[in-house]
Amino acid sequence: MSETSAEPDMLSWTCPAPLRDRPRVVMGHGGGGAMSAELIEQVIVPGLGGQEPAPLTDSATVELGGARLAFSTDSFVVRPLFFPGGSIGDLAVNGTVNDLAMSGADPAFLSCGLILEEGVEIDTVAKVAEALGAAARAAGVRVVTGDTKVVEAGHGDGVYINTSGIGLIPAGVDLRPERVVPGDVVIVSGFVGVHGVAIMSERENLRFEVEIVSDCAPLGGLVEAMLAVTPDLHVLRDPTRGGLAASLNEIATAAGCGVVVQERAVPVPPPVASACAMLGLDPMYVANEGKLVAFVPREHADAVLAAMRAHERGSEAAIIGEVVADHPGMVVARTGLGGTRVVDMPLGEQLPRIC
Amino acid sequence: MSETSAEPDMLSWTCPAPLRDRPRVVMGHGGGGAMSAELIEQVIVPGLGGQEPAPLTDSATVELGGARLAFSTDSFVVRPLFFPGGSIGDLAVNGTVNDLAMSGADPAFLSCGLILEEGVEIDTVAKVAEALGAAARAAGVRVVTGDTKVVEAGHGDGVYINTSGIGLIPAGVDLRPERVVPGDVVIVSGFVGVHGVAIMSERENLRFEVEIVSDCAPLGGLVEAMLAVTPDLHVLRDPTRGGLAASLNEIATAAGCGVVVQERAVPVPPPVASACAMLGLDPMYVANEGKLVAFVPREHADAVLAAMRAHERGSEAAIIGEVVADHPGMVVARTGLGGTRVVDMPLGEQLPRIC
Repeated sequence: MSETSAEPDMLSWTCPAPLRDRPRVVMGHGGGGAMSAELIEQVIVPGLGGQEPAPLTDSATVELGGARLAFSTDSFVVRPLFFPGGSIGDLAVNGTVNDLAMSGADPAFLSCGLILEEGVEIDTVAKVAEALGAAARAAGVRVVTGDTKVVEAGHGDGVYINTSGIGLIPAGVDLRPERVVPGDVVIVSGFVGVHGVAIMSERENLRFEVEIVSDCAPLGGLVEAMLAVTPDLHVLRDPTRGGLAASLNEIATAAGCGVVVQERAVPVPPPVASACAMLGLDPMYVANEGKLVAFVPREHADAVLAAMRAHERGSEAAIIGEVVADHPGMVVARTGLGGTRVVDMPLGEQLPRIC
Repeated sequence: MSETSAEPDMLSWTCPAPLRDRPRVVMGHGGGGAMSAELIEQVIVPGLGGQEPAPLTDSATVELGGARLAFSTDSFVVRPLFFPGGSIGDLAVNGTVNDLAMSGADPAFLSCGLILEEGVEIDTVAKVAEALGAAARAAGVRVVTGDTKVVEAGHGDGVYINTSGIGLIPAGVDLRPERVVPGDVVIVSGFVGVHGVAIMSERENLRFEVEIVSDCAPLGGLVEAMLAVTPDLHVLRDPTRGGLAASLNEIATAAGCGVVVQERAVPVPPPVASACAMLGLDPMYVANEGKLVAFVPREHADAVLAAMRAHERGSEAAIIGEVVADHPGMVVARTGLGGTRVVDMPLGEQLPRIC
């Protein structure tokens, strides 16, 4: 289905030389942008060595005992542990549930690995566990296995959580960027930039007229509603670290296609837009924890959009752009003023430890 | 198959009051003993709430798409990252592979979540990834999905790793402590106490006449050889944190049976015995990373032992005891002098951050 580009390595274009060859890990290596990709592709994957297909994608599709499964993992190091609209426990459930859902899987079971810092209050651990349990029930998944480690004070930060998850992929569903083709319509499920700004305002003790609360939410039900229209969606992605810009760039690169976004069509709530203007952030690069971006064959776009808008998690869904054969691997935005700008892959982190 | 004891809560017997009701997490909560169990059973599981069966076992058995799967997770925070006989990368693979194997599953796929500390050398990350890849190949599993986060210097310790894993459980295999009955024979697959002493000696810069190297190894092949004798093994456990003592106590409690161990039959290599004597450690409580303990129906014990001894990972296998109807939930050792001592559940940690 896909036309793979012969373009060798788009990262060489987005990652300037001075950031390479650093001898030590810096915060930017965890930002979900070009530096993260470089660390993974140039250090971790070659280290793991000889494993095909390239591992360390957000979610893998594997077969076991005749079942086609999605398998995903995420660690959560968000600071602070509790923030407007959620907590590390909500993120830990929804982050992994959403990675599974982006494979088209029905999220079923989670694991939970805790790394606790010596000295953290037992009460805090209990509150995190409660948030995790409530989020699991809301998402319709069960936490079935776990592990708890403790590290000395000064070697952690209260609570870190890893969740991994598995879910069954329905027959006929095959979501991956290689299936994207020119003409595909790009749909976002709602307002972008909310989670990152909520965390940032809590961390920096900023107050806005309207409180900005995280959009952290499970997306399994929304994906199910979209797949009920047609199993032939091409790719889904939840734009977390690195925001919409990172997701669109990753897909454009993997698909060997270009993406054109109508900047005015990207739904950004006014308080988020104001906060971003004040903080010098671009909403396209801010993390979301309850949104998805879908690449949909043109003939199904209207019906998929309608199904999304009919779902509680997609009521603000909007078509924001399309896939083109031009400028493969590159994302451009048509600005409100009639101009065009390149939407780069983010380099490092705008906001560290956002999830 | 099992006779469940009416005994309410054996932990109340092993965990003295002063260690309860602490308002903050201490290192002992990560030791895999009674304090770990208390944190999990009294804080984390109730927090998660309303999930049946009780989650957070080492490995869960779940059904998806008609396949019966083992699903397991473990975080690794060992210090130092490299030690005689292995590294955090080897532990991260073998720890999860062995948890799957203890369910009787054929370990198939792993996830890998890294939490890197700002400032750690890229070269160290590469070496850890290489160790992880080599261990995965040796264990016959594939790392298929991953995640990398970075935390500020002073909020980590170089590299923490979480691995989760899935594997298929063959038909007819049903390993769980509830199946243990009086008369079952207890077999250990080889020398105990090696991993913990190897880590401790590296950390404290102790030198012995014979270098003690970790026994870290994958056990999938050994389990396969044992199940080829009979699928009717009752329970398998890899005695990691808390050592053989913790594993035997957990099984005795869950089975509602007593366990009697012949102390002289427990294989302890002389250098480990000397080191333990010097360090004030009991080898029964020291972590192993390449050993298992099996509870086997008496009629199959000799054949299973022979199959273990014929396997490279079980050449020193030995029968060390049996299950009795007396003193349910309690493990006792018959000492070399003809006496009897209670082998308690360890309380906290003998050696912190051993895996």
